[in-house]
Amino acid sequence: MSDQGYVPPKVWVNNSEGGNKWANINSPESGARFERDLPVGEHPLQLYSLGTPNGQKVTILLEELLALGIKEAEYDAFLINIGDSDQFSSGFVGVNPNSKIPALVDRSGEQAVNVFESASILVHLAERFGHFLPASGPERTQTFNWLFWAQGSAPFLGGGFGHFYAYADEKQEYPINRFAMEAKRQLDVLDKQLAKHTYVAGEEYSIADMAIWPWYGNLALGKLYDAAEFLQVDSYQNVQRWAKQIAARPAVQRGRIVNRTFGEVWEQLAERHHSEDIDKVLALAP
Amino acid sequence: MSDQGYVPPKVWVNNSEGGNKWANINSPESGARFERDLPVGEHPLQLYSLGTPNGQKVTILLEELLALGIKEAEYDAFLINIGDSDQFSSGFVGVNPNSKIPALVDRSGEQAVNVFESASILVHLAERFGHFLPASGPERTQTFNWLFWAQGSAPFLGGGFGHFYAYADEKQEYPINRFAMEAKRQLDVLDKQLAKHTYVAGEEYSIADMAIWPWYGNLALGKLYDAAEFLQVDSYQNVQRWAKQIAARPAVQRGRIVNRTFGEVWEQLAERHHSEDIDKVLALAP
Repeated sequence: MSDQGYVPPKVWVNNSEGGNKWANINSPESGARFERDLPVGEHPLQLYSLGTPNGQKVTILLEELLALGIKEAEYDAFLINIGDSDQFSSGFVGVNPNSKIPALVDRSGEQAVNVFESASILVHLAERFGHFLPASGPERTQTFNWLFWAQGSAPFLGGGFGHFYAYADEKQEYPINRFAMEAKRQLDVLDKQLAKHTYVAGEEYSIADMAIWPWYGNLALGKLYDAAEFLQVDSYQNVQRWAKQIAARPAVQRGRIVNRTFGEVWEQLAERHHSEDIDKVLALAP
Repeated sequence: MSDQGYVPPKVWVNNSEGGNKWANINSPESGARFERDLPVGEHPLQLYSLGTPNGQKVTILLEELLALGIKEAEYDAFLINIGDSDQFSSGFVGVNPNSKIPALVDRSGEQAVNVFESASILVHLAERFGHFLPASGPERTQTFNWLFWAQGSAPFLGGGFGHFYAYADEKQEYPINRFAMEAKRQLDVLDKQLAKHTYVAGEEYSIADMAIWPWYGNLALGKLYDAAEFLQVDSYQNVQRWAKQIAARPAVQRGRIVNRTFGEVWEQLAERHHSEDIDKVLALAP
């Protein structure tokens, strides 16, 4: 493919015919593609997700809440296999019209509440249970600063760098350069912040860490896009320190495997309905 | 530039030498590039911004609050000219280590609070003044759902579609197709939501509208990237209805021109320190 002299048409038309393995999933139209209800388990919190970084954010928070002894945070985590188009069922679209994982239905109140966008789920749960998001003051603002930083930055890492470096069938120099530079800049922003603070938003562990670690922590630990050498992730020493510190938390080790369908056998749990489901898989770890 | 057979190196190196007009601003390193304090005006709220969509979000909210008679929302809006690297001053980086506009310093309390990321500023101000973000219930969750949707989606519109369609010196087919498809899908998501609801998060005007309108409203009204025909924005009729409805609000007409340095003479106000600053410019409108 050469771009020499490419002139966009007056009106964009959908000529997608490959380019990457998601080509048959992507579409300029939203909405349900087929009728199917979502399954419902026994707990008040019903999560529909996949163990990608965006999914991990929520299961890490849920496991952190359970680790505090909050039984109301018990949840059923159903698998949404995006390769099988599960995100386009009428049931899933009814919860999240944007057809992206994760989505949560909170059935604890009189009225079921649909929650979508990973960070909105973090805020909803943090406010409901009163943990990991300060209720007021500058610390609350700092947590939101970095939570929104995560949500606005990760698309450049995932939809930008990850797509062009790891997923696109043909490697293209310009987009890879553009998004590699931004990925490194983002790592550098985090590195300077973590040089001054224990956690991203300050001295307290918060939902900002839970939003950022699955993307930038995994990246720093060499678990995303096989890009550790390319981006020289070892040079961000404060990110390294923090990434390992978060990874060592038992709740993180539990949450990160939920709805995960790749990796080692001891880090894959397609669905989670009881605490023991996680115990059994983690018991397989070497 | 041909990508035929491009193989990324083992280690990414910064060879940026043009490609677009921002090439000398982009860098894989963050942090201050020179020492300079930020100016400080007379009001408790000090905004450092530029009238791009992300800047408009905040000035629209501030003008909406002032329209409600909330005098504590008075603000000084200083210009951060990103073409002149203002975002890399030690003063600006001290408020926002990510070097992106907008940034706000709230000096109303005992301790000055630094607020960055446009949506974090929206949440901070909405919670402080008790407007445009429901305090509890499903409506609060819906507002956060769509606020985070905006923040996670707009990078594909701005950093993706806008960059490759409007800013990159050479047009490249694959990235333009990728991001045009996503921009249209996002418009379609909004269109279906706005078919059912007056505003994005339901029946109440909220910070979700204020976050989404500057990007998708401007896009629908043909004021972003000159892409109205390419993306066939007229076909999203519910987005059209909503975009015009929001555009007609007096506070939106005021907020959208603050820190704006392009467009018609009656939509440009480099700095705003008093209400009359806006009146004078709007008086020039035909």
